Amino acid sequence: QLREILCGFSPMEIAEIFTDLQSDDEAVLMRILPHETAAEVFEYLSLEEQEQLLHSLGSEQVAQILNDISPDDRTALLEELPAAATQKLLNLLSPNERKIASDLLGYPKDSIGRRMTPEYVAIKQSWNAQEVLNYLRVEGRKRESLNQLYVVDEKGKLVDWVRLRNVVVADPQTPVVELLENRNLALRATDDQESAVAAFRKYDVTILPVVDSKDVLVGVVTVDDILDVAEKEATEDIQKLGGMEALDAPYLKITLLQMVKKRAGWLSILFVSEMFTSTAMGYFEGEIEKAAILSIFLPLILSSGGNSGSQATTLIIRAMAVRDVALRDWARVFRRELMAGLSLGFVLATLGFARIFIWQHLKFKDYGPHYMKVALTISGSLIGVVLWGSLVGAMLPMVLRRLKFDPAVCSAPFVATLVDVTGIVIYFNVAYQLLHGTLL
Amino acid sequence: QLREILCGFSPMEIAEIFTDLQSDDEAVLMRILPHETAAEVFEYLSLEEQEQLLHSLGSEQVAQILNDISPDDRTALLEELPAAATQKLLNLLSPNERKIASDLLGYPKDSIGRRMTPEYVAIKQSWNAQEVLNYLRVEGRKRESLNQLYVVDEKGKLVDWVRLRNVVVADPQTPVVELLENRNLALRATDDQESAVAAFRKYDVTILPVVDSKDVLVGVVTVDDILDVAEKEATEDIQKLGGMEALDAPYLKITLLQMVKKRAGWLSILFVSEMFTSTAMGYFEGEIEKAAILSIFLPLILSSGGNSGSQATTLIIRAMAVRDVALRDWARVFRRELMAGLSLGFVLATLGFARIFIWQHLKFKDYGPHYMKVALTISGSLIGVVLWGSLVGAMLPMVLRRLKFDPAVCSAPFVATLVDVTGIVIYFNVAYQLLHGTLL
Ligand SMILES: [Mg+2]
Ligand SMILES: [Mg+2]
Ligand SMILES: [Mg+2]
Ligand SMILES: [Mg+2]
Ligand SMILES: [Mg+2]
Ligand SMILES: [Mg+2]
Ligand SMILES: [Mg+2]
Ligand SMILES: [Mg+2]
Ligand SMILES: [Mg+2]
Ligand SMILES: [Mg+2]
Ligand SMILES: [Mg+2]
Ligand SMILES: [Mg+2]
Ligand SMILES: [Mg+2]
Repeated sequence: QLREILCGFSPMEIAEIFTDLQSDDEAVLMRILPHETAAEVFEYLSLEEQEQLLHSLGSEQVAQILNDISPDDRTALLEELPAAATQKLLNLLSPNERKIASDLLGYPKDSIGRRMTPEYVAIKQSWNAQEVLNYLRVEGRKRESLNQLYVVDEKGKLVDWVRLRNVVVADPQTPVVELLENRNLALRATDDQESAVAAFRKYDVTILPVVDSKDVLVGVVTVDDILDVAEKEATEDIQKLGGMEALDAPYLKITLLQMVKKRAGWLSILFVSEMFTSTAMGYFEGEIEKAAILSIFLPLILSSGGNSGSQATTLIIRAMAVRDVALRDWARVFRRELMAGLSLGFVLATLGFARIFIWQHLKFKDYGPHYMKVALTISGSLIGVVLWGSLVGAMLPMVLRRLKFDPAVCSAPFVATLVDVTGIVIYFNVAYQLLHGTLL
Repeated sequence: QLREILCGFSPMEIAEIFTDLQSDDEAVLMRILPHETAAEVFEYLSLEEQEQLLHSLGSEQVAQILNDISPDDRTALLEELPAAATQKLLNLLSPNERKIASDLLGYPKDSIGRRMTPEYVAIKQSWNAQEVLNYLRVEGRKRESLNQLYVVDEKGKLVDWVRLRNVVVADPQTPVVELLENRNLALRATDDQESAVAAFRKYDVTILPVVDSKDVLVGVVTVDDILDVAEKEATEDIQKLGGMEALDAPYLKITLLQMVKKRAGWLSILFVSEMFTSTAMGYFEGEIEKAAILSIFLPLILSSGGNSGSQATTLIIRAMAVRDVALRDWARVFRRELMAGLSLGFVLATLGFARIFIWQHLKFKDYGPHYMKVALTISGSLIGVVLWGSLVGAMLPMVLRRLKFDPAVCSAPFVATLVDVTGIVIYFNVAYQLLHGTLL
């Protein structure tokens, strides 16, 4: 009876029921479901749930499910597992599915090939509408989508595509060549999956063909998987910008140890880099002893440089990720940040000057007889540090991209650290120039 | 002849040609294109290009295009314009299209209703397959998608949907009720558009129906628009996390003045908040004069707290945005950050201690006779500050969400500023406890 009750639900609803169950119970339920339903339910589970469920299922059922699910969902699961587990699972597949799975896994990590499914329908240029429909009745069964039919030449090269809709309403004798869409859109299997996000955004389509280096059609990518890619890539960039490695797992699912590892690395690098601030300040210990007032304003000045740097680096990294800014725009970016940095520096310089002037005159605080010179030192340093922060924050990601590094490595805390060290030098030099002979 | 040449290209290709042209030239070309093509080309242009082009077109052609483009693309354009311009353009629409446009604009900003198109096909429960097909031949023309047909009751309430594919292959006499999908999925028009991203990611569909508060079907949302929403919302969150207002425009398209405005606000708020560091340090001026060595390590300690806070706030804000963490998880998050903060604090404390110990013994630098106590002060403060940074960074976004504010307001620089002020108090108190009687 349990089976009958379960079959009253759609696979998606069953998957939703599963989220509240332990994987042992899920395994029991999977066993009583019909094969195709079990595979569909499995596809709706998250990667973490899929992984857990695999451990609770017998190897016969694992084999059944892995053979039944769509190739792209299988790739997504297999690439998450340790290499040994992946190999073991590949051996459970039928020769045909094993070939498909290892072909897909053969594409580089995070490439479009890894998100592909070979379940498209390819038709010949020489056919007519009737022949296409006859072919579909035989071959159209388990395909990801029939809405687009891909026309290939004798060598398998992608020529164009036709809409099923147009084939159905056309006269049966209409040759395929008359129904072509004339849209030369194809993704390249070895390209980064981020470029697929840009293509889907630009072309507003739900499915795109994928070709290899010889323009041979090798698969299709669907927009539902690309939406996942877009969210995943944004999460990665956000986490890197926050100054850590990408977690690659939901916050509450990752183990504490793994999370600490992903955070400790960058935190230590930032800490060791920030030690140069102590070195830099060591050089100015004499000045600090003479004018302790200087050290009071130090965090204010350094953090302003860090904040403007954080703004600039955030803007440029995101703009490059969504293709608003390309490397060749570097000179325009430089000019914009030069102007923005100067303007922002002046705003903060005014605020800083006002603060000292007002506090002094309202007698909230006594900055000494040379308070005007102190105020000028603060204002001058602010302009220098904010300008420097904006320029470094904007240019560094572009330099990293140019050197083929991931620009998102240049996180907001990293820029802040760089600006802290150079900011100290800027501050004490401005102070030396302005206060030499009076305070210093 | 130009017309013939242009008509050899697809609308998307024409739109691509447009990106390299001035809007005056674009206007000339738009005039020679057939109406439907002009509207399609217009839909492929970016919002900025659409806006510029409107200024170069005659009002008759503006009216033509605005009446022809799909309602969702029209909403996206109209909501970007100043209110007066929107009103002027609405008056150019036919009574029917004006009704559609102002209904859609009537939904709150960033709601699902604003992303909707009413161009769906609704069918009656009492029909059979043949009646559906007859209806489609008459009504199916300019609809966003025919792949899903929505079944509504007499009051317009959404009952379910059927796939066109199944209607076509079914016996013509099959009643619609036998073809229902039994999938009870619908979005609510007044919900935030971010919830649509989550729904599309979960259900892996390309189109979803939208209902009002009475479950009446009012439109559909397609995945291509949701992919744009996902990227836009991620961009907003990233920019806010970077410590500024969301730009709401591509980096190179926004005017310098607008960009400076979006950045200066938060930069000033952060600057004024950071002034409390000067106030806090003012209280410890005596200690600094006695032990200038303390101020040398200050940037190092404060930045470590800011960095761990930046990590925590980045993780939690993104996890809440992609629905990995909900408000009710706050206790779990607190425990995780407590443990993570302590672990990370110990890592940095060890590094800090080692630095002073090694530098002292290798005689790189002399931290004085009490260098062990100084090292302990640094290490102890690091643990306190890093723990504090992690907890504040993780909890503050959740508190903001609880109070119905946007959690992304709690940017990485904002957390760093908070931690800077409290970090000074932590540092000098630890120093006072450990160094009292020796250095202080
Ligand atoms: Mg479960
Ligand atoms: Mg799928
Ligand atoms: Mg788009
Ligand atoms: Mg798929
Ligand atoms: Mg990336
Ligand atoms: Mg990546
Ligand atoms: Mg243009
Ligand atoms: Mg569109
Ligand atoms: Mg999905
Ligand atoms: Mg649309
Ligand atoms: Mg948002
Ligand atoms: Mg929003
Ligand atoms: Mg800082």
